[in-house]
Amino acid sequence: MASITVGMIGLGRMGLAIAQRLVQAKHRVVGFDQTSAMMDAAKTQGVETVQGLEALVQQSTVLWLMIPAGKPVDDVLAHVKPMLRPDQIIIDGGNSFFKDSMRRAEQLAPQKIAFLDCGTSGGVHGKDLGFSLMIGGDKQAYEKVVLLFEAIAAPSGYFYVGPSGSGHYVKMVHNGIEYALLQAYAEGFHMIKDGPFKNTDLEAVAHVWNHGAIIRSWIGELAEKVFARDQDLNEISGAIGENLTGQWTIEIAKELNVPVRLIAESLAVRAWSRQTGGNYATKVVAMLRHEFGGHEVKKVK
Amino acid sequence: MASITVGMIGLGRMGLAIAQRLVQAKHRVVGFDQTSAMMDAAKTQGVETVQGLEALVQQSTVLWLMIPAGKPVDDVLAHVKPMLRPDQIIIDGGNSFFKDSMRRAEQLAPQKIAFLDCGTSGGVHGKDLGFSLMIGGDKQAYEKVVLLFEAIAAPSGYFYVGPSGSGHYVKMVHNGIEYALLQAYAEGFHMIKDGPFKNTDLEAVAHVWNHGAIIRSWIGELAEKVFARDQDLNEISGAIGENLTGQWTIEIAKELNVPVRLIAESLAVRAWSRQTGGNYATKVVAMLRHEFGGHEVKKVK
Repeated sequence: MASITVGMIGLGRMGLAIAQRLVQAKHRVVGFDQTSAMMDAAKTQGVETVQGLEALVQQSTVLWLMIPAGKPVDDVLAHVKPMLRPDQIIIDGGNSFFKDSMRRAEQLAPQKIAFLDCGTSGGVHGKDLGFSLMIGGDKQAYEKVVLLFEAIAAPSGYFYVGPSGSGHYVKMVHNGIEYALLQAYAEGFHMIKDGPFKNTDLEAVAHVWNHGAIIRSWIGELAEKVFARDQDLNEISGAIGENLTGQWTIEIAKELNVPVRLIAESLAVRAWSRQTGGNYATKVVAMLRHEFGGHEVKKVK
Repeated sequence: MASITVGMIGLGRMGLAIAQRLVQAKHRVVGFDQTSAMMDAAKTQGVETVQGLEALVQQSTVLWLMIPAGKPVDDVLAHVKPMLRPDQIIIDGGNSFFKDSMRRAEQLAPQKIAFLDCGTSGGVHGKDLGFSLMIGGDKQAYEKVVLLFEAIAAPSGYFYVGPSGSGHYVKMVHNGIEYALLQAYAEGFHMIKDGPFKNTDLEAVAHVWNHGAIIRSWIGELAEKVFARDQDLNEISGAIGENLTGQWTIEIAKELNVPVRLIAESLAVRAWSRQTGGNYATKVVAMLRHEFGGHEVKKVK
C-alpha cells in the first residue's frame, strides 16, 4: 500500500482525528493549525507540524482542509493558490456549502488542481470507529487518493457520490436529517420524563429500544450513555447550537420545492431554545450533540 | 428451563412470530385465531390450535393477546373473564392505549389475575432477530413469566418498566418517535432524489450513512433495502397508513404540556398524504413501513 503525504490544514477535533487515522495507516501527515496548542497535540500523535502553509504545500501531495466553512476556506485557498503545483489534490473535509465547493473546484481547475468535496460524518467517535465519507469531484482524482478515504472511513463507510459539490450536498442533507432525528428522540424522552410514570429509567428505555426496536440507532446508543450519567439534566442549558448546514438545507429545499416540514421544525425549535434556554427535550439534544460532536453545552447557574 | 404453556390469542404476523419464538424455546403454545387460514399456518409452526377460547384458557398458564387495540381486547377479556382461574397471567402484547391497560389490570385484580402490558417493537424481522419489549404491571407476575420475554426478545431486548400501563406508554412514545424518524429520513432522501445531483444512488447514500455516520440506524438499513429494489417508486401510492398510537402520543403530550412539534408534524404529513396521495418522501415512508411491519402499500394505476 503506497504511502501518500497529506498536508492537514486545521488540527481541531476532526482534523486531528483524521490525521491520526492517516498516520496509523502509514501515511505521512504534515500538519498546520493557527493555534500552537493544537500543533503540540498533533505532534504527540505522529503528525509532523510545520510553521506555515508554504512548507506544508511544498511537502504534500494532497492538501486536506478541516477548517470552518465559508471565509476561512476561501482565505486558505487564496493563500495557497500561488504555491500549488499541477496535479496536487485538495480535499475539503469540512461542512462547506456545496455551491461554494462547486465554485472552488471550477476556480482551481485551470491550474490542474483537483478539488474534492468530502462530507465527513461520525463526530469524535470517528477517531476510533472510522468516519462516513461522501465524496464529490473529479473521479480520477478520487481514485488517486481513495486509499486515504479507505484509511479514515469506517468499514464500507465511503463512496464517490458524483460531480463537484455532490459530496457536500449529501452531507448537508445528512445534517438536516440529523437535526430532526435528535429532536424526535428528545421529544419522546421528554414525554417519558414528564409523563405519568415518573420513575421510568430513561437509560433502560434507551437500552431496550436499542435492542430489537424499530427505532434502534446510533443516536439511541448515545442517549443511553447520556442517561447513564444524568437523567435530570438540571445543571445544563437547553440552548442548542448549530452550524449553517441546517439553514442551508431549508433554503435549498425551498429552491427545490421539496417540503421538509420536520427538518424545518427542528431548526425552529433550536432557534427557540437559544432565545429561551429551551426545555428538557432541547437539553437532551444539547447533550447528544456534546456526546457525538464534543459540542459545548452551557451550564446553568 | 421450565416450559410454560402459553395461549396465544391472535395468530397474525406478530402473534405467529411470537408463537414461533416461544415454540423454538421449548414452550408449549396453544393458539386461536378467528381466521382459519391463520390457524392452519400456525399448525405448521408447532402451535397446537384449538377451536375456541374455552379450550385455550383451560390449557394455558399464560394468555397472550396479539390482537388489534380497543374493542377487540375488551371483547376477548369479557369473553374469557368467567373462565379464568386465579394466578393465570394475561399479557397484552399489542398496541393498546396505556389507560385501557391500567383499567383492565384493575378490573382483573379482584380475580387474582395479573395483567401485564407489553409493548412489542421489531416488526416482521423480530421473528428472526427477536423483539424489543417494554413491560408494565405486577412485578411478581412479570418475574413468573420473564422466561417467556427472554425467549422472544432480542438479546438484552426486554425490561420491566413499572406499574400497569407503563409498558404500553413507553411503546406509544416509541411509535411517536418512529413516525418522526421515518419522515425525517424521507425528507432527506426526497431532497437528494429531486436535488441538483439527480443521478445520486440512494442505495449507496443509505449504505454509506449506515457505516460510520451519526444518523446510522435500523431504519437507515431498511431504506438501503428499499432502494436496492426501486428508487423511483413510481408505481406505489404515497398515502401512509397508521394505527392510533401516533394520535394518542399527541393527545397525551397536550395533557402533559410537553411540546412534540416533530411528532405532530409527522402525523400531519401522514394525514395530508392520505388526502392527496403524498409525494416522494411519503412514498419512502410507506415503503419503510412495509419493510419493517409488512404494512400494505397501495399501488397506483
